[in-house]
Amino acid sequence: MALENRHVDCIIKLGGSAITSKQHLEKANTQAINIAASHVHEMTRKCVIVHGAGSFGHFHAKKYNIATGFNDTDFEQQRIGFSQTRLSVTKLNHIIVQALIEKDVPAVSISPCGLWKTTDRSVTSTFLQPINDLLRAGFVPVVHGDAVIDTSLGCTILSGDTIIQILAENLCPKRIIFITDTNGIYDRPPHNDDAKLLRYISVTKDGKVTNEIETSQLEHDVTGGVQTKIASAAHIVSKCNIPVHVVKLGSAAAWKLLDKGELEESDIATTITLQESEYPK
Amino acid sequence: MALENRHVDCIIKLGGSAITSKQHLEKANTQAINIAASHVHEMTRKCVIVHGAGSFGHFHAKKYNIATGFNDTDFEQQRIGFSQTRLSVTKLNHIIVQALIEKDVPAVSISPCGLWKTTDRSVTSTFLQPINDLLRAGFVPVVHGDAVIDTSLGCTILSGDTIIQILAENLCPKRIIFITDTNGIYDRPPHNDDAKLLRYISVTKDGKVTNEIETSQLEHDVTGGVQTKIASAAHIVSKCNIPVHVVKLGSAAAWKLLDKGELEESDIATTITLQESEYPK
Repeated sequence: MALENRHVDCIIKLGGSAITSKQHLEKANTQAINIAASHVHEMTRKCVIVHGAGSFGHFHAKKYNIATGFNDTDFEQQRIGFSQTRLSVTKLNHIIVQALIEKDVPAVSISPCGLWKTTDRSVTSTFLQPINDLLRAGFVPVVHGDAVIDTSLGCTILSGDTIIQILAENLCPKRIIFITDTNGIYDRPPHNDDAKLLRYISVTKDGKVTNEIETSQLEHDVTGGVQTKIASAAHIVSKCNIPVHVVKLGSAAAWKLLDKGELEESDIATTITLQESEYPK
Repeated sequence: MALENRHVDCIIKLGGSAITSKQHLEKANTQAINIAASHVHEMTRKCVIVHGAGSFGHFHAKKYNIATGFNDTDFEQQRIGFSQTRLSVTKLNHIIVQALIEKDVPAVSISPCGLWKTTDRSVTSTFLQPINDLLRAGFVPVVHGDAVIDTSLGCTILSGDTIIQILAENLCPKRIIFITDTNGIYDRPPHNDDAKLLRYISVTKDGKVTNEIETSQLEHDVTGGVQTKIASAAHIVSKCNIPVHVVKLGSAAAWKLLDKGELEESDIATTITLQESEYPK
Protein backbone atom coordinates (compact mmCIF):
# COMPACT_ATOMS: atom_id res chain seq x y z
CA MET A 1 0.00 0.00 0.00
CA ALA A 2 1.41 3.36 -1.10
CA LEU A 3 0.96 5.10 2.24
CA GLU A 4 3.73 7.60 1.53
CA ASN A 5 2.85 10.64 -0.57
CA ARG A 6 -0.78 9.81 -0.10
CA HIS A 7 -2.91 11.96 -2.36
CA VAL A 8 -6.20 11.06 -0.77
CA ASP A 9 -7.31 10.95 2.83
CA CYS A 10 -10.93 10.07 2.38
CA ILE A 11 -13.40 8.60 -0.08
CA ILE A 12 -16.89 9.99 0.31
CA LYS A 13 -19.90 8.11 -0.99
CA LEU A 14 -22.96 10.27 -1.54
CA GLY A 15 -25.87 7.86 -1.47
CA GLY A 16 -28.47 8.17 -4.23
CA SER A 17 -31.28 8.20 -1.65
CA ALA A 18 -29.73 11.13 0.18
CA ILE A 19 -29.21 13.39 -2.84
CA THR A 20 -32.26 12.65 -5.01
CA SER A 21 -35.97 12.15 -4.52
CA LYS A 22 -36.11 8.46 -5.34
CA GLN A 23 -39.84 8.54 -6.07
CA HIS A 24 -39.53 11.22 -8.76
CA LEU A 25 -37.71 10.63 -12.04
CA GLU A 26 -34.57 12.76 -12.35
CA LYS A 27 -35.40 14.93 -9.34
CA ALA A 28 -32.29 16.07 -7.51
CA ASN A 29 -32.62 17.01 -3.84
CA THR A 30 -30.80 20.31 -4.30
CA GLN A 31 -31.00 21.23 -0.63
CA ALA A 32 -29.32 17.94 0.30
CA ILE A 33 -26.71 18.36 -2.45
CA ASN A 34 -25.88 21.84 -1.17
CA ILE A 35 -25.43 20.46 2.36
CA ALA A 36 -23.19 17.70 0.97
CA ALA A 37 -21.15 20.33 -0.90
CA SER A 38 -20.79 22.30 2.35
CA HIS A 39 -19.63 19.10 4.07
CA VAL A 40 -16.88 18.71 1.50
CA HIS A 41 -15.98 22.40 1.65
CA GLU A 42 -15.45 22.11 5.40
CA MET A 43 -12.91 19.35 4.87
CA THR A 44 -9.25 20.17 4.83
CA ARG A 45 -8.59 16.68 3.56
CA LYS A 46 -7.96 15.39 0.07
CA CYS A 47 -10.89 13.35 -1.09
CA VAL A 48 -12.61 11.57 -3.93
CA ILE A 49 -16.39 11.73 -4.14
CA VAL A 50 -18.40 8.84 -5.53
CA HIS A 51 -22.13 9.30 -5.92
CA GLY A 52 -24.99 6.99 -6.63
CA ALA A 53 -27.67 7.61 -9.23
CA GLY A 54 -30.81 7.71 -7.08
CA SER A 55 -33.72 8.55 -9.37
CA PHE A 56 -31.34 9.32 -12.25
CA GLY A 57 -30.37 6.58 -14.66
CA HIS A 58 -32.30 3.78 -13.01
CA PHE A 59 -35.45 4.28 -15.06
CA HIS A 60 -33.66 4.02 -18.41
CA ALA A 61 -31.35 1.24 -17.21
CA LYS A 62 -34.35 -0.82 -16.15
CA LYS A 63 -36.49 -0.11 -19.22
CA TYR A 64 -33.72 -1.21 -21.59
CA ASN A 65 -32.20 -3.98 -19.40
CA ILE A 66 -28.79 -2.33 -19.44
CA ALA A 67 -27.58 -4.21 -16.33
CA THR A 68 -28.00 -7.62 -17.97
CA GLY A 69 -26.34 -6.69 -21.28
CA PHE A 70 -27.30 -6.44 -24.92
CA ASN A 71 -29.58 -9.04 -26.43
CA ASP A 72 -30.11 -9.90 -30.08
CA THR A 73 -33.70 -8.78 -30.42
CA ASP A 74 -33.62 -5.11 -29.49
CA PHE A 75 -29.97 -4.24 -29.70
CA GLU A 76 -30.52 -0.89 -31.47
CA GLN A 77 -33.00 0.27 -28.83
CA GLN A 78 -30.73 -0.92 -26.04
CA ARG A 79 -27.91 1.22 -27.40
CA ILE A 80 -30.18 4.24 -27.17
CA GLY A 81 -31.14 3.10 -23.66
CA PHE A 82 -27.45 2.89 -22.72
CA SER A 83 -26.92 6.43 -24.02
CA GLN A 84 -29.99 7.67 -22.14
CA THR A 85 -28.81 6.02 -18.91
CA ARG A 86 -25.43 7.73 -19.21
CA LEU A 87 -27.02 11.07 -20.06
CA SER A 88 -29.22 10.79 -17.00
CA VAL A 89 -26.46 9.94 -14.51
CA THR A 90 -24.16 12.60 -15.93
CA LYS A 91 -27.00 15.11 -15.51
CA LEU A 92 -26.97 14.38 -11.77
CA ASN A 93 -23.17 14.44 -11.77
CA HIS A 94 -23.27 17.88 -13.37
CA ILE A 95 -25.64 19.19 -10.67
CA ILE A 96 -23.35 17.86 -7.92
CA VAL A 97 -20.14 19.23 -9.47
CA GLN A 98 -21.82 22.61 -9.92
CA ALA A 99 -22.91 22.68 -6.26
CA LEU A 100 -19.36 21.78 -5.16
CA ILE A 101 -17.78 24.51 -7.30
CA GLU A 102 -20.25 27.05 -5.92
CA LYS A 103 -18.84 26.17 -2.47
CA ASP A 104 -15.31 26.75 -3.79
CA VAL A 105 -14.49 23.03 -4.00
CA PRO A 106 -12.32 22.42 -7.12
CA ALA A 107 -14.43 19.50 -8.31
CA VAL A 108 -13.80 17.69 -11.59
CA SER A 109 -16.10 15.05 -13.02
CA ILE A 110 -14.63 11.68 -14.04
CA SER A 111 -17.08 9.26 -15.64
CA PRO A 112 -16.21 5.53 -15.52
CA CYS A 113 -17.75 4.72 -18.94
CA GLY A 114 -14.91 3.92 -21.31
CA LEU A 115 -12.30 3.86 -18.54
CA TRP A 116 -13.71 0.97 -16.55
CA LYS A 117 -14.79 -2.27 -18.19
CA THR A 118 -16.40 -5.39 -16.83
CA THR A 119 -16.60 -9.02 -17.90
CA ASP A 120 -19.75 -10.84 -16.81
CA ARG A 121 -20.47 -7.85 -14.58
CA SER A 122 -17.17 -8.09 -12.66
CA VAL A 123 -14.69 -5.24 -13.07
CA THR A 124 -11.77 -6.49 -15.16
CA SER A 125 -10.26 -3.23 -16.37
CA THR A 126 -9.87 0.16 -14.72
CA PHE A 127 -7.97 3.30 -15.56
CA LEU A 128 -7.29 5.21 -12.36
CA GLN A 129 -4.61 7.53 -13.74
CA PRO A 130 -7.03 10.46 -14.25
CA ILE A 131 -8.17 10.26 -10.62
CA ASN A 132 -4.56 10.13 -9.41
CA ASP A 133 -3.49 13.02 -11.64
CA LEU A 134 -6.37 15.20 -10.53
CA LEU A 135 -5.75 14.41 -6.86
CA ARG A 136 -2.06 15.23 -7.22
CA ALA A 137 -3.02 18.56 -8.79
CA GLY A 138 -5.26 19.36 -5.81
CA PHE A 139 -8.63 18.68 -7.43
CA VAL A 140 -11.56 16.71 -6.01
CA PRO A 141 -12.52 14.01 -8.55
CA VAL A 142 -16.24 13.26 -8.66
CA VAL A 143 -16.98 9.75 -9.92
CA HIS A 144 -20.39 8.11 -10.31
CA GLY A 145 -22.19 4.86 -10.90
CA ASP A 146 -22.41 4.49 -14.66
CA ALA A 147 -23.38 2.38 -17.67
CA VAL A 148 -20.20 0.69 -18.94
CA ILE A 149 -18.94 -1.65 -21.66
CA ASP A 150 -18.94 -5.33 -20.60
CA THR A 151 -16.66 -7.54 -22.70
CA SER A 152 -18.97 -10.54 -22.52
CA LEU A 153 -22.46 -9.01 -22.15
CA GLY A 154 -21.91 -5.90 -24.26
CA CYS A 155 -22.86 -3.54 -21.46
CA THR A 156 -23.82 -3.43 -17.82
CA ILE A 157 -24.27 -1.09 -14.86
CA LEU A 158 -21.27 -0.36 -12.64
CA SER A 159 -22.51 0.66 -9.20
CA GLY A 160 -21.03 3.37 -7.01
CA ASP A 161 -20.47 0.72 -4.30
CA THR A 162 -18.28 -1.37 -6.62
CA ILE A 163 -16.34 1.76 -7.61
CA ILE A 164 -15.74 2.55 -3.94
CA GLN A 165 -14.31 -0.92 -3.33
CA ILE A 166 -11.82 -0.64 -6.16
CA LEU A 167 -10.84 2.93 -5.26
CA ALA A 168 -10.29 1.85 -1.64
CA GLU A 169 -7.96 -0.97 -2.72
CA ASN A 170 -5.97 1.28 -5.03
CA LEU A 171 -5.92 4.68 -3.34
CA CYS A 172 -5.59 3.46 0.27
CA PRO A 173 -7.46 6.34 1.97
CA LYS A 174 -7.46 6.71 5.75
CA ARG A 175 -11.22 6.33 5.90
CA ILE A 176 -14.37 5.94 3.83
CA ILE A 177 -17.53 7.84 4.64
CA PHE A 178 -20.95 6.81 3.38
CA ILE A 179 -23.16 9.89 3.59
CA THR A 180 -26.74 8.62 3.62
CA ASP A 181 -30.29 9.53 4.56
CA THR A 182 -30.17 7.46 7.78
CA ASN A 183 -28.18 7.81 11.00
CA GLY A 184 -26.23 4.67 10.22
CA ILE A 185 -26.86 0.94 10.03
CA TYR A 186 -29.69 -0.49 12.14
CA ASP A 187 -30.09 -4.06 13.30
CA ARG A 188 -33.36 -4.16 11.34
CA PRO A 189 -35.18 -1.70 9.03
CA PRO A 190 -35.33 1.67 10.82
CA HIS A 191 -39.12 1.97 10.49
CA ASN A 192 -39.44 -0.89 13.03
CA ASP A 193 -40.09 0.59 16.47
CA ASP A 194 -37.50 -1.64 18.12
CA ALA A 195 -34.78 -1.07 15.50
CA LYS A 196 -31.48 -0.18 17.13
CA LEU A 197 -28.68 1.79 15.58
CA LEU A 198 -25.49 -0.24 15.51
CA ARG A 199 -22.76 2.14 16.64
CA TYR A 200 -20.04 -0.33 15.79
CA ILE A 201 -19.91 -3.22 13.38
CA SER A 202 -16.89 -5.45 13.22
CA VAL A 203 -15.81 -7.59 10.34
CA THR A 204 -13.50 -10.60 10.19
CA LYS A 205 -10.59 -10.83 7.77
CA ASP A 206 -12.66 -13.04 5.52
CA GLY A 207 -15.39 -10.41 5.29
CA LYS A 208 -17.94 -11.78 7.77
CA VAL A 209 -19.95 -9.34 9.89
CA THR A 210 -19.65 -10.46 13.53
CA ASN A 211 -22.52 -8.35 14.92
CA GLU A 212 -25.95 -9.77 15.43
CA ILE A 213 -27.68 -8.18 12.51
CA GLU A 214 -31.01 -9.71 11.70
CA THR A 215 -30.22 -10.50 8.11
CA SER A 216 -33.57 -12.14 7.52
CA GLN A 217 -35.26 -8.85 8.26
CA LEU A 218 -32.73 -6.89 6.25
CA GLU A 219 -33.55 -9.09 3.32
CA HIS A 220 -37.07 -7.67 3.37
CA ASP A 221 -35.80 -4.12 3.22
CA VAL A 222 -37.65 -2.74 0.21
CA THR A 223 -34.78 -0.55 -0.90
CA GLY A 224 -32.35 -3.49 -0.93
CA GLY A 225 -29.79 -0.83 -0.19
CA VAL A 226 -28.74 -1.60 3.36
CA GLN A 227 -27.61 -5.12 2.71
CA THR A 228 -25.56 -4.05 -0.32
CA LYS A 229 -24.05 -1.25 1.73
CA ILE A 230 -23.05 -3.61 4.55
CA ALA A 231 -21.59 -6.13 2.08
CA SER A 232 -19.62 -3.39 0.33
CA ALA A 233 -18.34 -1.96 3.61
CA ALA A 234 -17.42 -5.41 4.94
CA HIS A 235 -15.46 -6.11 1.78
CA ILE A 236 -13.49 -2.87 2.09
CA VAL A 237 -12.82 -3.33 5.80
CA SER A 238 -11.69 -6.94 5.45
CA LYS A 239 -9.60 -6.46 2.34
CA CYS A 240 -8.00 -3.08 3.06
CA ASN A 241 -8.37 -2.62 6.83
CA ILE A 242 -9.79 0.84 6.21
CA PRO A 243 -12.60 1.96 8.57
CA VAL A 244 -15.96 2.75 6.99
CA HIS A 245 -18.30 5.26 8.61
CA VAL A 246 -22.00 5.56 7.81
CA VAL A 247 -23.43 8.96 8.75
CA LYS A 248 -26.52 11.00 8.02
CA LEU A 249 -26.21 13.92 5.64
CA GLY A 250 -26.17 17.19 7.59
CA SER A 251 -25.90 15.50 11.01
CA ALA A 252 -23.52 16.67 13.74
CA ALA A 253 -21.67 13.37 13.28
CA ALA A 254 -21.17 14.03 9.57
CA TRP A 255 -19.82 17.54 10.19
CA LYS A 256 -17.46 16.30 12.88
CA LEU A 257 -16.24 13.33 10.90
CA LEU A 258 -15.51 15.41 7.84
CA ASP A 259 -13.93 18.25 9.78
CA LYS A 260 -11.86 16.33 12.35
CA GLY A 261 -11.65 12.94 10.69
CA GLU A 262 -12.99 11.12 13.71
CA LEU A 263 -16.08 10.65 15.84
CA GLU A 264 -16.63 10.91 19.59
CA GLU A 265 -18.40 8.37 21.78
CA SER A 266 -21.57 10.48 21.84
CA ASP A 267 -21.91 10.78 18.05
CA ILE A 268 -24.77 9.03 16.29
CA ALA A 269 -23.32 7.04 13.39
CA THR A 270 -22.07 3.57 12.51
CA THR A 271 -18.39 2.72 12.30
CA ILE A 272 -17.37 -0.50 10.62
CA THR A 273 -13.89 -1.81 11.37
CA LEU A 274 -11.84 -5.00 11.34
CA GLN A 275 -12.46 -7.21 14.40
CA GLU A 276 -9.86 -6.25 17.00
CA SER A 277 -8.30 -9.69 17.19
CA GLU A 278 -7.85 -9.55 13.41
CA TYR A 279 -5.61 -6.49 13.47
CA PRO A 280 -1.99 -7.22 12.59
CA LYS A 281 0.13 -7.44 15.80
CA MET B 1 -2.88 2.50 -40.81
CA ALA B 2 -5.46 0.00 -39.61
CA LEU B 3 -7.74 0.27 -42.64
CA GLU B 4 -9.16 -3.21 -42.12
CA ASN B 5 -12.00 -3.57 -39.64
CA ARG B 6 -12.34 0.18 -39.61
CA HIS B 7 -14.66 1.28 -36.82
CA VAL B 8 -14.99 4.85 -37.99
CA ASP B 9 -15.74 6.32 -41.39
CA CYS B 10 -15.90 9.96 -40.50
CA ILE B 11 -14.86 12.48 -37.88
CA ILE B 12 -17.26 15.40 -37.60
CA LYS B 13 -16.17 18.68 -36.06
CA LEU B 14 -19.02 20.86 -34.85
CA GLY B 15 -17.60 24.35 -34.74
CA GLY B 16 -18.24 26.41 -31.63
CA SER B 17 -19.47 29.35 -33.75
CA ALA B 18 -22.07 27.17 -35.45
CA ILE B 19 -23.60 25.64 -32.32
CA THR B 20 -23.47 28.52 -29.81
CA SER B 21 -24.16 32.23 -29.80
CA LYS B 22 -20.59 33.42 -29.37
CA GLN B 23 -21.65 36.84 -28.08
CA HIS B 24 -23.70 35.43 -25.21
CA LEU B 25 -22.13 33.53 -22.32
CA GLU B 26 -23.18 29.88 -22.25
CA LYS B 27 -25.91 30.32 -24.85
CA ALA B 28 -26.35 27.23 -26.99
CA ASN B 29 -27.87 27.64 -30.43
CA THR B 30 -30.39 24.86 -29.89
CA GLN B 31 -31.87 25.15 -33.39
CA ALA B 32 -28.39 24.68 -34.90
CA ILE B 33 -27.63 21.79 -32.53
CA ASN B 34 -30.86 20.07 -33.55
CA ILE B 35 -29.93 20.45 -37.23
CA ALA B 36 -26.46 19.04 -36.48
CA ALA B 37 -28.09 16.11 -34.67
CA SER B 38 -30.32 15.51 -37.69
CA HIS B 39 -27.23 15.58 -39.91
CA VAL B 40 -25.66 12.81 -37.83
CA HIS B 41 -28.91 10.85 -37.72
CA GLU B 42 -29.04 10.85 -41.51
CA MET B 43 -25.60 9.26 -41.66
CA THR B 44 -25.31 5.55 -42.11
CA ARG B 45 -21.62 5.85 -41.31
CA LYS B 46 -19.71 5.26 -38.11
CA CYS B 47 -18.47 8.54 -36.74
CA VAL B 48 -16.86 10.39 -33.89
CA ILE B 49 -18.09 13.91 -33.11
CA VAL B 50 -15.74 16.55 -31.75
CA HIS B 51 -17.21 19.89 -30.79
CA GLY B 52 -15.76 23.24 -29.90
CA ALA B 53 -16.75 25.30 -26.88
CA GLY B 54 -18.07 28.46 -28.52
CA SER B 55 -19.39 30.70 -25.76
CA PHE B 56 -19.00 27.91 -23.19
CA GLY B 57 -15.76 27.56 -21.26
CA HIS B 58 -13.92 30.44 -22.89
CA PHE B 59 -15.02 33.05 -20.36
CA HIS B 60 -13.75 31.07 -17.36
CA ALA B 61 -10.63 29.88 -19.18
CA LYS B 62 -9.71 33.47 -20.01
CA LYS B 63 -10.56 34.92 -16.60
CA TYR B 64 -8.36 32.41 -14.80
CA ASN B 65 -5.63 32.07 -17.47
CA ILE B 66 -6.17 28.32 -17.76
CA ALA B 67 -4.51 28.09 -21.18
CA THR B 68 -1.16 29.36 -19.88
CA GLY B 69 -1.07 27.15 -16.78
CA PHE B 70 -1.06 27.60 -13.03
CA ASN B 71 0.95 30.41 -11.48
CA ASP B 72 2.15 30.76 -7.91
CA THR B 73 0.09 33.77 -6.90
CA ASP B 74 -3.50 32.67 -7.43
CA PHE B 75 -3.23 28.92 -7.66
CA GLU B 76 -6.29 28.23 -5.51
CA GLN B 77 -8.48 30.49 -7.60
CA GLN B 78 -7.11 29.01 -10.82
CA ARG B 79 -8.11 25.55 -9.67
CA ILE B 80 -11.67 26.78 -9.24
CA GLY B 81 -11.38 28.40 -12.68
CA PHE B 82 -10.24 25.09 -14.16
CA SER B 83 -13.25 23.35 -12.58
CA GLN B 84 -15.60 26.08 -13.84
CA THR B 85 -14.16 25.82 -17.36
CA ARG B 86 -14.75 22.06 -17.38
CA LEU B 87 -18.24 22.45 -15.94
CA SER B 88 -19.08 24.94 -18.67
CA VAL B 89 -17.82 22.86 -21.62
CA THR B 90 -19.45 19.71 -20.27
CA LYS B 91 -22.72 21.68 -20.00
CA LEU B 92 -22.58 22.27 -23.76
CA ASN B 93 -21.52 18.66 -24.31
CA HIS B 94 -24.55 17.51 -22.36
CA ILE B 95 -26.89 19.63 -24.52
CA ILE B 96 -25.35 18.18 -27.70
CA VAL B 97 -25.49 14.57 -26.51
CA GLN B 98 -29.11 15.05 -25.45
CA ALA B 99 -30.03 16.46 -28.89
CA LEU B 100 -28.32 13.51 -30.57
CA ILE B 101 -30.11 10.94 -28.41
CA GLU B 102 -33.45 12.63 -29.14
CA LYS B 103 -32.71 11.95 -32.83
CA ASP B 104 -32.02 8.29 -31.99
CA VAL B 105 -28.24 8.63 -32.31
CA PRO B 106 -26.57 6.44 -29.62
CA ALA B 107 -24.25 9.20 -28.46
CA VAL B 108 -21.88 8.81 -25.52
CA SER B 109 -19.84 11.66 -24.05
CA ILE B 110 -16.07 11.19 -23.63
CA SER B 111 -14.27 14.08 -21.96
CA PRO B 112 -10.52 14.42 -22.60
CA CYS B 113 -9.70 15.76 -19.11
CA GLY B 114 -7.77 13.07 -17.28
CA LEU B 115 -7.35 10.91 -20.40
CA TRP B 116 -5.33 13.36 -22.46
CA LYS B 117 -2.34 15.20 -21.05
CA THR B 118 -0.07 17.85 -22.47
CA THR B 119 3.47 19.03 -21.78
CA ASP B 120 4.12 22.68 -22.58
CA ARG B 121 0.74 22.69 -24.35
CA SER B 122 1.64 19.86 -26.74
CA VAL B 123 -0.26 16.59 -26.41
CA THR B 124 2.08 13.99 -24.91
CA SER B 125 -0.37 11.42 -23.60
CA THR B 126 -3.71 10.19 -24.91
CA PHE B 127 -6.00 7.32 -24.02
CA LEU B 128 -8.07 6.44 -27.07
CA GLN B 129 -9.27 3.04 -25.84
CA PRO B 130 -12.68 4.36 -24.68
CA ILE B 131 -13.35 5.89 -28.10
CA ASN B 132 -12.35 2.64 -29.84
CA ASP B 133 -14.42 0.51 -27.50
CA LEU B 134 -17.51 2.68 -27.93
CA LEU B 135 -17.12 2.74 -31.73
CA ARG B 136 -16.75 -1.03 -31.81
CA ALA B 137 -19.96 -1.34 -29.78
CA GLY B 138 -21.80 0.86 -32.28
CA PHE B 139 -21.91 4.08 -30.28
CA VAL B 140 -21.11 7.60 -31.44
CA PRO B 141 -18.47 9.06 -29.10
CA VAL B 142 -18.83 12.80 -28.52
CA VAL B 143 -15.54 14.45 -27.55
CA HIS B 144 -14.93 18.14 -26.85
CA GLY B 145 -12.31 20.80 -26.34
CA ASP B 146 -11.45 20.70 -22.64
CA ALA B 147 -9.31 21.94 -19.78
CA VAL B 148 -6.61 19.32 -19.18
CA ILE B 149 -3.62 18.57 -16.95
CA ASP B 150 -0.30 19.82 -18.39
CA THR B 151 2.75 18.12 -16.89
CA SER B 152 4.89 21.25 -17.03
CA LEU B 153 2.38 24.11 -16.74
CA GLY B 154 -0.08 22.39 -14.40
CA CYS B 155 -3.00 22.87 -16.76
CA THR B 156 -3.93 24.15 -20.19
CA ILE B 157 -6.71 24.15 -22.78
CA LEU B 158 -6.85 21.34 -25.32
CA SER B 159 -8.68 22.57 -28.42
CA GLY B 160 -11.12 20.57 -30.50
CA ASP B 161 -8.86 21.15 -33.53
CA THR B 162 -5.91 19.48 -31.80
CA ILE B 163 -8.14 16.57 -30.78
CA ILE B 164 -9.27 16.14 -34.40
CA GLN B 165 -5.65 15.94 -35.58
CA ILE B 166 -4.79 13.19 -33.12
CA LEU B 167 -7.99 11.25 -33.77
CA ALA B 168 -7.35 11.47 -37.52
CA GLU B 169 -3.85 10.02 -37.10
CA ASN B 170 -5.04 7.19 -34.89
CA LEU B 171 -8.50 6.28 -36.20
CA CYS B 172 -7.78 6.75 -39.93
CA PRO B 173 -11.29 7.78 -41.01
CA LYS B 174 -12.20 8.08 -44.68
CA ARG B 175 -12.95 11.77 -44.32
CA ILE B 176 -13.21 14.63 -41.87
CA ILE B 177 -16.05 17.13 -41.98
CA PHE B 178 -15.88 20.55 -40.35
CA ILE B 179 -19.47 21.71 -39.90
CA THR B 180 -19.32 25.48 -39.55
CA ASP B 181 -21.36 28.67 -39.85
CA THR B 182 -19.84 29.54 -43.25
CA ASN B 183 -20.07 27.89 -46.68
CA GLY B 184 -16.41 26.93 -46.51
CA ILE B 185 -13.04 28.65 -46.63
CA TYR B 186 -12.82 32.00 -48.45
CA ASP B 187 -9.73 33.61 -49.91
CA ARG B 188 -10.31 36.51 -47.52
CA PRO B 189 -12.82 37.21 -44.69
CA PRO B 190 -16.32 36.51 -46.09
CA HIS B 191 -17.66 39.98 -45.18
CA ASN B 192 -15.41 41.43 -47.95
CA ASP B 193 -17.49 41.96 -51.07
CA ASP B 194 -14.89 40.37 -53.31
CA ALA B 195 -14.24 37.35 -51.07
CA LYS B 196 -14.36 34.14 -53.07
CA LEU B 197 -15.18 30.71 -51.72
CA LEU B 198 -12.32 28.32 -52.35
CA ARG B 199 -13.94 25.13 -53.62
CA TYR B 200 -10.69 23.21 -53.44
CA ILE B 201 -7.58 23.75 -51.39
CA SER B 202 -4.56 21.57 -51.95
CA VAL B 203 -1.81 20.89 -49.48
CA THR B 204 1.74 19.63 -50.01
CA LYS B 205 3.18 16.69 -48.11
CA ASP B 206 4.99 19.09 -45.80
CA GLY B 207 1.72 20.83 -44.89
CA LYS B 208 1.92 23.94 -47.10
CA VAL B 209 -1.29 25.30 -48.63
CA THR B 210 -0.68 25.76 -52.36
CA ASN B 211 -3.70 27.97 -53.10
CA GLU B 212 -3.46 31.70 -53.22
CA ILE B 213 -5.04 32.53 -49.90
CA GLU B 214 -4.48 36.06 -48.79
CA THR B 215 -2.98 35.21 -45.46
CA SER B 216 -2.40 38.81 -44.50
CA GLN B 217 -6.11 39.44 -44.63
CA LEU B 218 -6.91 36.21 -42.84
CA GLU B 219 -4.71 37.39 -40.02
CA HIS B 220 -7.14 40.25 -39.46
CA ASP B 221 -10.06 37.89 -39.11
CA VAL B 222 -11.44 38.87 -35.74
CA THR B 223 -12.40 35.34 -34.76
CA GLY B 224 -8.92 34.03 -35.49
CA GLY B 225 -10.73 30.84 -36.35
CA VAL B 226 -10.21 30.49 -40.09
CA GLN B 227 -6.45 30.44 -39.98
CA THR B 228 -6.42 27.86 -37.21
CA LYS B 229 -8.93 25.79 -39.15
CA ILE B 230 -6.81 25.86 -42.31
CA ALA B 231 -3.66 25.00 -40.37
CA SER B 232 -5.40 22.11 -38.65
CA ALA B 233 -6.88 20.80 -41.89
CA ALA B 234 -3.55 21.15 -43.71
CA HIS B 235 -1.84 19.16 -40.97
CA ILE B 236 -4.38 16.33 -41.23
CA VAL B 237 -4.29 16.26 -45.02
CA SER B 238 -0.50 16.27 -45.23
CA LYS B 239 0.12 13.81 -42.43
CA CYS B 240 -2.72 11.32 -43.00
CA ASN B 241 -3.80 11.95 -46.62
CA ILE B 242 -7.40 12.15 -45.43
CA PRO B 243 -9.63 14.71 -47.21
CA VAL B 244 -11.13 17.46 -45.08
CA HIS B 245 -14.43 19.08 -46.06
CA VAL B 246 -15.66 22.40 -44.69
CA VAL B 247 -19.43 22.81 -45.04
CA LYS B 248 -22.15 25.01 -43.66
CA LEU B 249 -24.48 23.56 -41.05
CA GLY B 250 -27.84 22.72 -42.62
CA SER B 251 -26.67 23.37 -46.19
CA ALA B 252 -27.47 21.06 -49.09
CA ALA B 253 -23.76 20.28 -49.28
CA ALA B 254 -23.69 19.20 -45.64
CA TRP B 255 -26.70 16.90 -46.08
CA LYS B 256 -25.24 15.36 -49.21
CA LEU B 257 -21.78 14.90 -47.75
CA LEU B 258 -23.08 13.23 -44.62
CA ASP B 259 -25.60 11.08 -46.48
CA LYS B 260 -23.56 10.00 -49.52
CA GLY B 261 -20.04 10.64 -48.27
CA GLU B 262 -19.16 12.82 -51.23
CA LEU B 263 -19.91 16.12 -52.92
CA GLU B 264 -20.85 16.96 -56.49
CA GLU B 265 -19.29 19.65 -58.64
CA SER B 266 -22.22 22.00 -58.02
CA ASP B 267 -22.06 21.81 -54.21
CA ILE B 268 -21.00 24.86 -52.25
CA ALA B 269 -18.27 23.79 -49.84
CA THR B 270 -14.50 23.60 -49.50
CA THR B 271 -12.60 20.36 -49.94
CA ILE B 272 -8.99 20.21 -48.77
CA THR B 273 -6.85 17.40 -50.17
CA LEU B 274 -3.25 16.45 -50.77
CA GLN B 275 -1.80 18.04 -53.93
CA GLU B 276 -2.32 15.56 -56.78
CA SER B 277 1.37 15.19 -57.54
CA GLU B 278 1.93 14.30 -53.90
CA TYR B 279 -0.31 11.23 -53.94
CA PRO B 280 1.59 7.97 -53.69
CA LYS B 281 1.99 6.37 -57.17
